Amino acid sequence: MRTRYEADAVVTVDAAGSIHRPGALDVEDGAISWVGPGDAATPAPAEVVRLGGLIMPGLVNTHAHTPMTLVRSAGDGLPLERWLREAVWPREAALTGDDVRWGMLLGCEEMLRAGVTTTCEMYLHGRAVVDAALEAGIRCVLTPGIFDLPGSGLTWQRCLDDARRLHLDYEGRAGLVTVGVGPHSAYLLPTEGLEAVAIMAGETGGLVQIHLAETEEEGLGIEATHGCSAPALLERLGLLDQRVLAAHSVWLSDADLDVFARHDVAVAHCPQSNGKLGSGVARVAEMLARGLRVGLGTDGPASNDNLDLWEELRLAPLLARAVAADPAAIGTAEALVLATRGGAEALGLPTGSLEPGRHADFIRLDIDDPVFVPTLDDTELLAHLVWAASSRLVTDVWVGGRRVVRDRACTTIDAAAACREGATRARRLADAART
Amino acid sequence: MRTRYEADAVVTVDAAGSIHRPGALDVEDGAISWVGPGDAATPAPAEVVRLGGLIMPGLVNTHAHTPMTLVRSAGDGLPLERWLREAVWPREAALTGDDVRWGMLLGCEEMLRAGVTTTCEMYLHGRAVVDAALEAGIRCVLTPGIFDLPGSGLTWQRCLDDARRLHLDYEGRAGLVTVGVGPHSAYLLPTEGLEAVAIMAGETGGLVQIHLAETEEEGLGIEATHGCSAPALLERLGLLDQRVLAAHSVWLSDADLDVFARHDVAVAHCPQSNGKLGSGVARVAEMLARGLRVGLGTDGPASNDNLDLWEELRLAPLLARAVAADPAAIGTAEALVLATRGGAEALGLPTGSLEPGRHADFIRLDIDDPVFVPTLDDTELLAHLVWAASSRLVTDVWVGGRRVVRDRACTTIDAAAACREGATRARRLADAART
Repeated sequence: MRTRYEADAVVTVDAAGSIHRPGALDVEDGAISWVGPGDAATPAPAEVVRLGGLIMPGLVNTHAHTPMTLVRSAGDGLPLERWLREAVWPREAALTGDDVRWGMLLGCEEMLRAGVTTTCEMYLHGRAVVDAALEAGIRCVLTPGIFDLPGSGLTWQRCLDDARRLHLDYEGRAGLVTVGVGPHSAYLLPTEGLEAVAIMAGETGGLVQIHLAETEEEGLGIEATHGCSAPALLERLGLLDQRVLAAHSVWLSDADLDVFARHDVAVAHCPQSNGKLGSGVARVAEMLARGLRVGLGTDGPASNDNLDLWEELRLAPLLARAVAADPAAIGTAEALVLATRGGAEALGLPTGSLEPGRHADFIRLDIDDPVFVPTLDDTELLAHLVWAASSRLVTDVWVGGRRVVRDRACTTIDAAAACREGATRARRLADAART
Repeated sequence: MRTRYEADAVVTVDAAGSIHRPGALDVEDGAISWVGPGDAATPAPAEVVRLGGLIMPGLVNTHAHTPMTLVRSAGDGLPLERWLREAVWPREAALTGDDVRWGMLLGCEEMLRAGVTTTCEMYLHGRAVVDAALEAGIRCVLTPGIFDLPGSGLTWQRCLDDARRLHLDYEGRAGLVTVGVGPHSAYLLPTEGLEAVAIMAGETGGLVQIHLAETEEEGLGIEATHGCSAPALLERLGLLDQRVLAAHSVWLSDADLDVFARHDVAVAHCPQSNGKLGSGVARVAEMLARGLRVGLGTDGPASNDNLDLWEELRLAPLLARAVAADPAAIGTAEALVLATRGGAEALGLPTGSLEPGRHADFIRLDIDDPVFVPTLDDTELLAHLVWAASSRLVTDVWVGGRRVVRDRACTTIDAAAACREGATRARRLADAART
């Protein structure tokens, strides 16, 4: 069945930046079949839903460790290395699959209400992550974490076996799940582990997500161990011949950016996490100028500390403009692309814009709000979306055509239960870390 | 009559950073008379209001041109000079006092709902600004704009006369209003105008608010005209012997910071406006290290583009940490101070913290929300406030003991009327600017 959704404004984020006021969107079998002006003389479908407000693509979170809701705000003020070793890892050591499921549900509830319809996850207990994503009805790219955690029995070989099984079991599930592989970083994996990841990714064709060049220290360490930068190392090991998404990518030289461009490496830009942890500011404007695919990521809620990608949508252009002292460093329309279509392209998914053939992942905003006054033209409408709006205005959310948020309430997750379970489990992890 | 407000958490933002869980606050004649743990054996007042949730000081907006809601998002992407001359000033040329009143009401409705209880305003039509503030019930420091606008008949002499009358008419009105003086900048006023401002401020004792060192170009221009930096110029002219609040203060040398410290000049830090307009990043961590009084400002909604100071609360530490690549550049508790008590100190007002003798300007947050899960201790509670919360969670707001927001609705302003009037008037200004 085909359903038409009508709104006062439809912001498509297609290549031409088309905006229809009023506009409409036809959805059939979870995909968009038509989009256009609200008064277009196309055959009306059986069902017509008058939404009013504004509809636009759902936001795409290209880098998250969502179950880290259970360690939200832990270790505030520590630099990355100490934050991981002193605050995060000790608590995570006691994680069970059930903890991960509840942590993921808690975070998905927050993301869906904020209008995030796709999330790219790297974490432990991948099965629990993806089961929770399916329960939540969020689109999920799972890149199971690959690393050695001494003492835990986790080795990169075991992680890789698990990732392979997850790919077999979950790829394409419910039209929502894609499974890649998530080598943690060039510093938490030996070179043979990285090479093995490259081989596996070559077989499955899945996305390779890796933390890269997050801090200056990380780069100095790789340089000392391998005699080259992390991008150069990954290139040498053949990893960049796969579909690679490099999270953070803060400390990149011009030569590193050339490596990225040569191999079409995509970037998950995480400005809030990089700022809070004092990692630095990624060179996003230069990445875009080189034609790199760039999306936005919240990172985990222990370094952010929420999963509200509207903040990254505003921060990305703001930081770029502030640091370059140039108000044109990243344009307003360009910022909206980063949070939607750009993220989808970075993940290789047909979502992130309202165009025929794409997934019907879209959100409705209440624009009958003081921050949308005045709206004299389309340029101002866009500016309000990027510079004045926030997740507060998201009222309804659809993923693959399914309405998962209705009147600001998530229909798939019991928020109170998720809060209760999250709080209890977080307490247990913190207690375990102290003993 | 004394009223006690009880909450699950009371975040006082006093010098010791006291947090009471549960806690309570006594209010009498618009001021706080007692604050402490919820189970304290103090004599209970006649009226006890059980609020639940979290109460904390209202946010203090130290630099705003709130009626610029009527030119929200105008000229997006232009650098400051061109933005003013091409987008903003042509529209403002047709402003009436009634426009300013409605623009101010529209913005106050947004601020109050976001938990901003004090605003420091510099704009035209000061009488309309302060009348609207009184109507809204927001605490207001008015610093009437002083400048020459060629062609409009506005001269600095006329502006100064007007400011003097506003001081006589409004100082102390309803316990909410303070009137200072707002020389626009060292580049829009001749030196004799700045000297005259200093004399008037010396007579009234009012706050002097001035735009200072916002862009690199501005500094180069002052240097070329006067042979010194703007702070050095203002020092020479005697302006810094008054109580001065320097808005922006982005491009300051070490010597300029010394000038500020010597004269106890306060700073209104506007990170979102400075970022959006590509002005740069102020050296806030260094200002704090020198003991300067620093508050946060939204600036006008044409360069922000909203009046939600929660965004500045998060941006100030984030930008400082990102640019310095140091997660300790500005601490979490320090960020909360900037948005509350720091702002109050910058304005010289007894508000911004929950302590006996201060104005009863406080807000309630719903903390029964996923972003407050888990909250294992006071440190995490603070971290959630600064790094995960947002205006979305503000449910109720009191200014001088009067409840001006109840269950997320502003009780003093008809929001729908303000939106309608704002839209109509904005359209007229834009049309006038085109002809």
